[in-house]
Amino acid sequence: MTTDARYDVVAIGNAIVDVIASASLDFLASEGLESGSMRLIDGDAAVALYDRMGPAREISGGSAANSLAGLAVLGHACAFIGQVADDQLGEVFTHDMRATGIAFDVPAQPGPPPTARCLILIAPDGERTMNTALAMAHRLPASAIDEDMIGRAKYLLIEGYLWDAPEPQAAIKRAMAAAKRGRCKVFFALSALYLMGIYRDDFLSLIDDGIIDTLFCNDEEVAALMQTDDLESAIAALSVKVPTLVVTRGANGALAVQGGERAEIAAETVARVVDTTGAGDTFTSGFLAGQLEGRSLADSLTMGAICAAECIGHYGPRPEADLRALVDARLG
Amino acid sequence: MTTDARYDVVAIGNAIVDVIASASLDFLASEGLESGSMRLIDGDAAVALYDRMGPAREISGGSAANSLAGLAVLGHACAFIGQVADDQLGEVFTHDMRATGIAFDVPAQPGPPPTARCLILIAPDGERTMNTALAMAHRLPASAIDEDMIGRAKYLLIEGYLWDAPEPQAAIKRAMAAAKRGRCKVFFALSALYLMGIYRDDFLSLIDDGIIDTLFCNDEEVAALMQTDDLESAIAALSVKVPTLVVTRGANGALAVQGGERAEIAAETVARVVDTTGAGDTFTSGFLAGQLEGRSLADSLTMGAICAAECIGHYGPRPEADLRALVDARLG
Repeated sequence: MTTDARYDVVAIGNAIVDVIASASLDFLASEGLESGSMRLIDGDAAVALYDRMGPAREISGGSAANSLAGLAVLGHACAFIGQVADDQLGEVFTHDMRATGIAFDVPAQPGPPPTARCLILIAPDGERTMNTALAMAHRLPASAIDEDMIGRAKYLLIEGYLWDAPEPQAAIKRAMAAAKRGRCKVFFALSALYLMGIYRDDFLSLIDDGIIDTLFCNDEEVAALMQTDDLESAIAALSVKVPTLVVTRGANGALAVQGGERAEIAAETVARVVDTTGAGDTFTSGFLAGQLEGRSLADSLTMGAICAAECIGHYGPRPEADLRALVDARLG
Repeated sequence: MTTDARYDVVAIGNAIVDVIASASLDFLASEGLESGSMRLIDGDAAVALYDRMGPAREISGGSAANSLAGLAVLGHACAFIGQVADDQLGEVFTHDMRATGIAFDVPAQPGPPPTARCLILIAPDGERTMNTALAMAHRLPASAIDEDMIGRAKYLLIEGYLWDAPEPQAAIKRAMAAAKRGRCKVFFALSALYLMGIYRDDFLSLIDDGIIDTLFCNDEEVAALMQTDDLESAIAALSVKVPTLVVTRGANGALAVQGGERAEIAAETVARVVDTTGAGDTFTSGFLAGQLEGRSLADSLTMGAICAAECIGHYGPRPEADLRALVDARLG
């Protein structure tokens, strides 16, 4: 599909519906799951775990899709590229994107496999453990990439998760090339620690080749990428290679380095951590919105922290409050 | 299916997944919807409304099924009879029942129609407006009724909603007859005001024939059933016809009359009303649990109010907290 619209952000990501249930630490231990981790599971394992886990709520998810939801709520024009199956969860995902004001026109493919789902177990402290059955999300074809749309956009947002399968990786490469031919900056989220073990060389090549304009990661991911336990030396080595580097540090706040300038903020205070799912994704929403709005590096980080704090105060990875009002109350 | 288990409560109800979105009063007005109301819509109308409503969360619902979820969390043995289709929402509903510890063995039927869904719009004050596409839920056949299981149960819980279609009505009649042949009490929820306009004579016949042991309704429903605007005279006339009458009055609390004894309670204080969906259903959970546990009429009402208060403090009609701990903290 070709459109004349100019979007602030076009994102490529996994089209996933989250299935979110509470779980005791005993249950996590009995399943051999480490609280806070993410793993990929196949369809059979998903059925088996679903049978054992508690009653759940279904809420649309997916890392880049969550980031777009926050950006859209903040008033930025967004389009999404991802793959759903023609089933009920695919309808749910598609509805939720469009109902948030996000353009999403990649046609559903006939299943099987079904639309991707992520079985998420929430520990009593709000920490999430994700068990992702990617199913149809990993069938995103390169033909789904609208190169004109990307070339005209301000940012192309890519989640590293999607590098982990041949078809979506080819789609991402096509999208990155279109961004570089146009005036579109590439925002790349490293997504998960386990990806560094498999694709570290790929990601370093993307960085060294000047493809990535903004690299988004957490402290563990940056350490794994630069193969050092010393966060400061990892940041020093990496920040000279990318125009903008953003590192989130959970309860320890976040920092960013951009063209020699460095900014650092503390985490927001949250009355009760209900569910940490989507905290990093919605941090991205706020940070990127700040950059689009021409705010300072520190204020962009603060916007990220405000959005992340809203996210972890309720179940599900998508915003429920008026993020713009929350930001305006703080930064004007 | 026949089982030797003896359940505290067997319920017959609509097998529904709720699709819950926030909505402004302007949106409700533009859709011609009255906040707090419930209406039935067909598949096409459901698709059209879904297209216009905001991003949503999917949570299993259905009036009697919600009541069972509360009873199960309170530790009572429950079984459910209702009809889902063999689709993803049917899997969600089935999972959530079983994961709550409720026996649910009615086989899914091949669709179309799909599993029932209720599009629920939540106003800023937490009041819900329900738009129900009953679809497969109304195909519940009389053959799904396990008469032995019902005859051995302590209570048969029936939602009036299901009277509104020929097949489920036949199923309910078979279940009621099985209850009367056994030692099972019939708990009947009037469910909705609109049903009084259609089935008032049917319901009065059930009452006059001594089929109903506990009648559960709200103040509007009892007024419509007894065709009077005077709540006290409606209660006086009705309470001599049923062994137990329970009338909920929203923020005005609730009352019950049982064998000449009358009890009345105030509503619980709720910090913030998030979503009133399921408040009446979970009131039923608490009240019926109190009766099963041999508590006084007033304490049974208080248990109902505690469960309803927990329900309206979060999105969705099913309990999220440990209801037993909440009850024990109050009543011991």
